[in-house]
Amino acid sequence: MAPLPPGSTLGILGGGQLGRMLSQAASRLGFNVVILDPEENSPAGRVSQGQIVAAYDNPTALGVLGQTSAAVTFEFENVPAASVERLAEGGALVAPGPKALAVAQDRVDEKTFLNGVGATTVDFVPVDSLDDLLAGLERLGTPALLKTRREGYDGKGQIWARSAKMAADAWHAIGERPAILEARADFTRELSVIAARGRDGTLAVYPLGENTHKGGVLKTTVAPATVDAKTEKRAKAIAKAILDGLDYVGVLGVELFDLGGGKLLVNEIAPRVHNTGHWTQDGCVCDQFEQHIRAIAGWPLGPTNAHARVEMTNLLGDEVEQWKTLSAKPDMRLHLYGKAEARPGRKMGHVNRVKPL
Amino acid sequence: MAPLPPGSTLGILGGGQLGRMLSQAASRLGFNVVILDPEENSPAGRVSQGQIVAAYDNPTALGVLGQTSAAVTFEFENVPAASVERLAEGGALVAPGPKALAVAQDRVDEKTFLNGVGATTVDFVPVDSLDDLLAGLERLGTPALLKTRREGYDGKGQIWARSAKMAADAWHAIGERPAILEARADFTRELSVIAARGRDGTLAVYPLGENTHKGGVLKTTVAPATVDAKTEKRAKAIAKAILDGLDYVGVLGVELFDLGGGKLLVNEIAPRVHNTGHWTQDGCVCDQFEQHIRAIAGWPLGPTNAHARVEMTNLLGDEVEQWKTLSAKPDMRLHLYGKAEARPGRKMGHVNRVKPL
Repeated sequence: MAPLPPGSTLGILGGGQLGRMLSQAASRLGFNVVILDPEENSPAGRVSQGQIVAAYDNPTALGVLGQTSAAVTFEFENVPAASVERLAEGGALVAPGPKALAVAQDRVDEKTFLNGVGATTVDFVPVDSLDDLLAGLERLGTPALLKTRREGYDGKGQIWARSAKMAADAWHAIGERPAILEARADFTRELSVIAARGRDGTLAVYPLGENTHKGGVLKTTVAPATVDAKTEKRAKAIAKAILDGLDYVGVLGVELFDLGGGKLLVNEIAPRVHNTGHWTQDGCVCDQFEQHIRAIAGWPLGPTNAHARVEMTNLLGDEVEQWKTLSAKPDMRLHLYGKAEARPGRKMGHVNRVKPL
Repeated sequence: MAPLPPGSTLGILGGGQLGRMLSQAASRLGFNVVILDPEENSPAGRVSQGQIVAAYDNPTALGVLGQTSAAVTFEFENVPAASVERLAEGGALVAPGPKALAVAQDRVDEKTFLNGVGATTVDFVPVDSLDDLLAGLERLGTPALLKTRREGYDGKGQIWARSAKMAADAWHAIGERPAILEARADFTRELSVIAARGRDGTLAVYPLGENTHKGGVLKTTVAPATVDAKTEKRAKAIAKAILDGLDYVGVLGVELFDLGGGKLLVNEIAPRVHNTGHWTQDGCVCDQFEQHIRAIAGWPLGPTNAHARVEMTNLLGDEVEQWKTLSAKPDMRLHLYGKAEARPGRKMGHVNRVKPL
């Protein structure tokens, strides 16, 4: 396709911090942005030309957004397939496409796809009953991780099954819903790679990040991570296999388990800009948000090399009160999301600590 | 004052590109922004929480903006003093303050102030009549530059008086309005310095830029400019004298004539973020827009050191069509203003070419 000219309108489903930072990147490139989000005056809506306040599956709202926007994208992956169809009917180019969303919405489909393109994951078994779970524990050993097949994020909807005896409790804990049982990975650390694919199939892959989590929620990313050439090469090959396999357009995040010796397993993928890519805002001239906008607008992808080493730390809940001390430190770059209520664990902002490479 | 917390609302008079980039910087720090601009759907309004569509001297609009905003600032200097009073009555902190605006609005007052604080300018004479002009030409020699005392920007409202014989024509050309006659400066190049002063009187001065103009309009800035230590020191001393002399809060641009040998004359000052400071967006971690927001919000000022050498080029009128080729160049960072109509000479965007230091 011909690149969308500045002045075109882009639509974003979701008005949280990812939508906000996507909108800011889009407006730097001269685009107008319309947000769809059920919450009035959302963080993204407040920095955009307009916001449609409606449910994500409201057909009228989706029709309007599709007609208004030359291209539409998402800040989250749990967009109903019917919504994507409605947007496309409105005339908008939707990216990422239905295949990426479908794969990312179901953990069994996701792992099946990943292994199919050579992006190895832990062993897993689909679980539809307590019997399945018991058989799975037998096969994968304990402990193993039981997760709902659909939905769940930031550690929600998952539980470690530590013994066959605990299986019934675990099955009950996740609501006896269709699930997946995952073998434990014996990894040394968690890495991630942020990569983009343009409408013409070109790729742009950022240096790897090393991540730490706390209570299932990302706490820090350090990037570029210290990795050997083999690991770097393997991560980039994995990203390429996934992006090409999904015929993907936009930025995608890949969470990896580092087993050492250049061996990596894919933990999960997110078909969107990703929290572990926030370091690019202060470490690269073209951050993941601009990169995503470039991709969906059919622009050439931007450079991905790092010009600084960045330690990104999420500010969760009342940690955002640290803005006062952080704002006085010249190496700390604050990014705040404009959320009014600092509920415990809520992502309120992040700070990038910038050091020379 | 205590720094304004994220979530506070900031008001900006003026919805053009400077207001837009100020708004984007403010929202990155978690502020909400309201724009006042008579033009509906202005470039800044489109990336802000709200816009009041009204004339800049509309008392009701100013009252509402003052009540809504914890602090109010401007993207242009020709704000009526009465408007500033009205904003302050609404309860808002207004920065920069009345003194800076008054000085910047009248070229005679400006040059008188500048020389008073040791920031030397060219020789000048106030001109209120053709007789004054003839006497001025006698004193300053020809050619000399006749400018209206008030208003006029980008070379508008000024004309070179090349001989006493042409004086009557020049006087007529500027509308026989109160004017200033300026001696010609024998400069080798035009420099500028962007500097900020916080509410606590601390200063932050960026490296100098070297500027080229075309038809009275800024074309390029290269920064950090290649200057000797004496020139750098002198420019910073001039910035300090001006900022302290105005008891200034916010970012200010100072245009300089470089006479060589560390000798600088001040051409003019702009009490706001400045086109010659756009390079900081890609050359510094804290750009002039964030710096201005920090200052008016009572935050600590950010660092001003350059991490890259930047060549900023304005995209005027249909030059904005170059986005297609520029967007493919990895060292070119595009900043587009979202203006619909590319009228000749209109500032549509700029591009920062980024090179290692």
